[in-house]
Amino acid sequence: MVVAHPRQGSLTHRAAAAFARAAVAGGHEVETADLMAEGFDPVLRVADAPDWADPTKPWAADVLAEMVRIERNAATVLVFPVWWWSMPAVLKGWIDRVWANGWAYGGRNHPHARVWALAVVGASAAATAEGGFDRVLEGQIVDGIFRFCGVAEPRLALLCDAAADAEGVVAEAARLGAAF
Amino acid sequence: MVVAHPRQGSLTHRAAAAFARAAVAGGHEVETADLMAEGFDPVLRVADAPDWADPTKPWAADVLAEMVRIERNAATVLVFPVWWWSMPAVLKGWIDRVWANGWAYGGRNHPHARVWALAVVGASAAATAEGGFDRVLEGQIVDGIFRFCGVAEPRLALLCDAAADAEGVVAEAARLGAAF
Repeated sequence: MVVAHPRQGSLTHRAAAAFARAAVAGGHEVETADLMAEGFDPVLRVADAPDWADPTKPWAADVLAEMVRIERNAATVLVFPVWWWSMPAVLKGWIDRVWANGWAYGGRNHPHARVWALAVVGASAAATAEGGFDRVLEGQIVDGIFRFCGVAEPRLALLCDAAADAEGVVAEAARLGAAF
Repeated sequence: MVVAHPRQGSLTHRAAAAFARAAVAGGHEVETADLMAEGFDPVLRVADAPDWADPTKPWAADVLAEMVRIERNAATVLVFPVWWWSMPAVLKGWIDRVWANGWAYGGRNHPHARVWALAVVGASAAATAEGGFDRVLEGQIVDGIFRFCGVAEPRLALLCDAAADAEGVVAEAARLGAAF
C-alpha cells in the first residue's frame, strides 16, 4: 500500500488505515510505503535516465529499493488525494521514476496482476462525473498507466465527497479492503 | 515560460527555445523558469499547507518567489513532456504548490488571462486520440486546472509524434510561438 499525503492525520491516511485493517481481517498482510514520511524524492533527474529509451540502464539506489519492495509483495494499492485531477507530485514522481522502462513496461509487465488506486476526491460523485473528471482519472490511471503496464486486474475507486462526508470515505475504503 | 525536462538537450527544451524565439520575433519578452535547472522542490509539505482550506495562510518562500515571478509577467506557457498522460512530477508539484487556494482560485483567479500548455507526446496524434488520451489531457489540464482558475484564454497544444518526428515538434512549437 502506497500512501501519499503530507498530513499524517489526513482523510487519505484514515482511508488507507481503514482499507488495511479490513484487508488484514480478510487474511492479507499489508506493507505500507508512506512516501511523504519516508521522504521519497519524486524528481526524475538525468542520473535516473541517461537514456530513457535504454531498458538496460542501472536504476538509482532509491528507485531500486522501491522495486524490491514492490517485488516482495503480491499487489499494489495506491491511496492518495486527487489534486488537479491527478496524483500529488510525490506519487506522480514515484510512478515516473519506479515504473520505469524495462521494469514496468518495455519488454515486460509490472510484476503485479492486481493494482488498485483509491483516490480521495473532494467533490461529489455527481460533480466529478458532470465535469467528465471520472473519465479523465480512469483514462489517465487505469488505461494509461495500469493497463499499459500489463496489469490484469486494475481498479480505480473514486472515494468522492471527501469535503462533505469524510466518514463515508472511510467506510467505503473499509468495504474495498474487505473485498480485496 | 515554464519548462520541465531533466535533460537540457531534450526535445522539450528545443521546442521551448523555438517557441520563445518565435514569440520574441513577434514582439514578446520571454522569461524562462527551468524547473529542473533551478531545483524547484515539487513536494507539497505540511509547512506549505497547515490548513489547505485556509486562503490566508503565508506561502513558503520558494512558492512566494514563483508567485512573484508569475505576477511580473502577462501570460504563462508550460512546456513539458507528457509522462503517463500527465505532467512530470516537478511540474505537477509546481502547480500543486504555487497555484494555491487564495492565489490561483478560492476567491480570486489566476493572474493571467492567457495560459498555454505545450505538451510533447511520444505517441502519434492518431494513437493519442484512439486511446482517448487527447481528452484525458484536455479535461485534466484545460478544464480541471486552467478554466477552474478562471483563465480566460486557455490552450493545450499536443506536440505529438516526438519519437518519430522531432523536427515536426520543433516546427510546430515555432508556429505556436509566432501565433502567441
